[in-house]
Amino acid sequence: MVKLKGFQKLTLTDQALTTWLGAIQAGKPMVETVALQDALHRVLAVDLVAGEDLPRFDKSAVDGYSVKAADLSGATQFKPAILQLTDNQEITEKQAKQIWTGNPIPKGADAVVMLENTKKRESGEIEVWSQLAPGDNVSKKGEDIKKDEVATKAGTRINPYHIALAAALGNNILKVYRKPNIAILATGNELAEVGTKPLGNQIFDSNKIMLQAICQELGAETIDMGIAKDDTDEIAEKIKTALKAADAVITTGGTSVGGYDLVPDAVNQLGKPGVMVHGVALRPAMPTAVAVLEGKPVLILSGNPVAAVIGFEVFGRPMICKLLGLSKTEPRPAVKAVLARKVASALGRKTYIRVKVTSKNGEFTALPVSAKGSGAITTMTTSNGFVIVPENREGISEGETVIVHMFADLEEE
Amino acid sequence: MVKLKGFQKLTLTDQALTTWLGAIQAGKPMVETVALQDALHRVLAVDLVAGEDLPRFDKSAVDGYSVKAADLSGATQFKPAILQLTDNQEITEKQAKQIWTGNPIPKGADAVVMLENTKKRESGEIEVWSQLAPGDNVSKKGEDIKKDEVATKAGTRINPYHIALAAALGNNILKVYRKPNIAILATGNELAEVGTKPLGNQIFDSNKIMLQAICQELGAETIDMGIAKDDTDEIAEKIKTALKAADAVITTGGTSVGGYDLVPDAVNQLGKPGVMVHGVALRPAMPTAVAVLEGKPVLILSGNPVAAVIGFEVFGRPMICKLLGLSKTEPRPAVKAVLARKVASALGRKTYIRVKVTSKNGEFTALPVSAKGSGAITTMTTSNGFVIVPENREGISEGETVIVHMFADLEEE
Repeated sequence: MVKLKGFQKLTLTDQALTTWLGAIQAGKPMVETVALQDALHRVLAVDLVAGEDLPRFDKSAVDGYSVKAADLSGATQFKPAILQLTDNQEITEKQAKQIWTGNPIPKGADAVVMLENTKKRESGEIEVWSQLAPGDNVSKKGEDIKKDEVATKAGTRINPYHIALAAALGNNILKVYRKPNIAILATGNELAEVGTKPLGNQIFDSNKIMLQAICQELGAETIDMGIAKDDTDEIAEKIKTALKAADAVITTGGTSVGGYDLVPDAVNQLGKPGVMVHGVALRPAMPTAVAVLEGKPVLILSGNPVAAVIGFEVFGRPMICKLLGLSKTEPRPAVKAVLARKVASALGRKTYIRVKVTSKNGEFTALPVSAKGSGAITTMTTSNGFVIVPENREGISEGETVIVHMFADLEEE
Repeated sequence: MVKLKGFQKLTLTDQALTTWLGAIQAGKPMVETVALQDALHRVLAVDLVAGEDLPRFDKSAVDGYSVKAADLSGATQFKPAILQLTDNQEITEKQAKQIWTGNPIPKGADAVVMLENTKKRESGEIEVWSQLAPGDNVSKKGEDIKKDEVATKAGTRINPYHIALAAALGNNILKVYRKPNIAILATGNELAEVGTKPLGNQIFDSNKIMLQAICQELGAETIDMGIAKDDTDEIAEKIKTALKAADAVITTGGTSVGGYDLVPDAVNQLGKPGVMVHGVALRPAMPTAVAVLEGKPVLILSGNPVAAVIGFEVFGRPMICKLLGLSKTEPRPAVKAVLARKVASALGRKTYIRVKVTSKNGEFTALPVSAKGSGAITTMTTSNGFVIVPENREGISEGETVIVHMFADLEEE
């Protein structure tokens, strides 16, 4: 059996990730205070504890009349209970007081009858057509959350509903983690910055601006380190500079399974442990390398756009979630779908298949997007999710149900 | 049969939405030009057309050697083909030239053999262990996208991969739609702004800041119109001011099914058509009203936090997607899950059930989140999706498969 060069050194994806994340020496991120209206999508740094009961008092859950439930005993639409309307602060026997959703329950009342189950008489009385139990249609003090309970846990990404809850509890500021700074460096003599005139066979770099956008989408800040030539010293110099300002460095290009390893070499010049894994049993993204310098993560991605996307997906997302202070790696939305065409994969490699999921009459179908080489960035704009084929599978058959990790909207047919 | 007050006037949800959106007189939003790195999540205003082929030349899809495929006829690992390495610009018969992913294919070559299927001899020759067909491992000029093809359609929300594609095609600016301005007004004597000291039975307003966050999450700008007292004139005055600056107005509170209709009354004072639908067969969010003033949408939401969320979900999202210039209302990620407990709903009402979806061994389960009154905002922070029960169903049984519209991460167990 011929020994295939490069391949014998591939590390299993999960093992590479665990080794790498374990070696990052970043502690918890710094904490900063932001106004509540600026907290959207930030990560809560300290448990948000309810400073008081919510609601702060018993209140009506509906529009209607506050009553004593006992006064409605036996009431039906054929034999209504008759109550006297009052405007007093307190209601007494056989009285009712108009009340709107959210209003405090007046003294003496223990239930609220809905407007639509009543009829107002000209005499200043109301007919009530249904019985109630004490507490019916009343939101009890502390029913939503009690004083000293944790409203939202530290490590949570703040969504609009967390903001509403914080506001309802009277918090107009929140403690959140500082956003991590991610420095991004493209490498390659063949690359021109978009907006410049490319020379000869140069191509426009698209990886750096794409990775900036992905990092920003996750809630990180980015630092543009430009494009380095294919020169170990230049690359090393730029990474060294990046490490001064950034919490992590991501590079593209200058790494392969075969031997063109300018970036791993540059990283290894800069310190220990340097490159921890180079060559991952992952398709497409085998040339990915992961490193640690000065305790900070350095992610070395392929220059191939789709391989860079997958390498980031597998290594970059968990790394950034950790630096954000999230309690766990944020999952992509997952849907189950029927695979519309068989896909191939190699035993021993974790394989990411790009698919387009469509929904028709509630049935979800995942159509693999043909990739002519993993360089075709259009396969990322025409697909909306990944199917992950594990190492112990050799492809997936047509008609099998798969889990798709969605990165764009599902298409309705 | 007793006629229930208020209920007889409820409009079906879809009909209310269609009527309302149809009456909005906003044309296409204004167009503005942004730098590519600022285009994330904006909406493309003009089709992005490829100005050139991508790739611009035939290039290698792998690391290896460019060859003439015919020279490898019959090659196996037991009977390798032997090729002479060259550094020339052009390769001739029985020659090979080292090439890295993305490099242009040299003249004379028509395929690339992967590094791992070769062995370099000290003599300056390589052994090749496999046959190739012409075109193998070559990314052909224009294979990703051809000149003059539409790369991304107008009306698309720009994600990081659209940015990458635009960059690869040499675009460093994009034409996008101007962000709409949404004015948000809370109403109610009982409300205090978060950050102030509440008086007596006042509660903190949480709806306004929540709706600001939801609108911002969708990509709109927001204008904070503060809190209006329960006074038709004050409410009308604030809405009038809001209409001068904003593309749409959203209010909370001051609307009911029963008769406490300060906001609808205020809107109707301001012009035609005013309120188009008031009272929707939707739970929870029946008191929602939709209006049009000066051709602009006015969305009148309940003061009840969860009813406000659902009213926004049903009416606000489509309205904002339209104002953003999106080609369609952006769907929430949808998953299929097994309902873990039966839920009740009333015939004739579209009902939104909050559920928490968990995934265990690839099986998705949706557990309804108990709501003690729709005022409990914690039900929005502990759930992660909605199940929509249509008007023609009376509840859903335990064990039925449902589609869940996700607004937060799925929980893995």
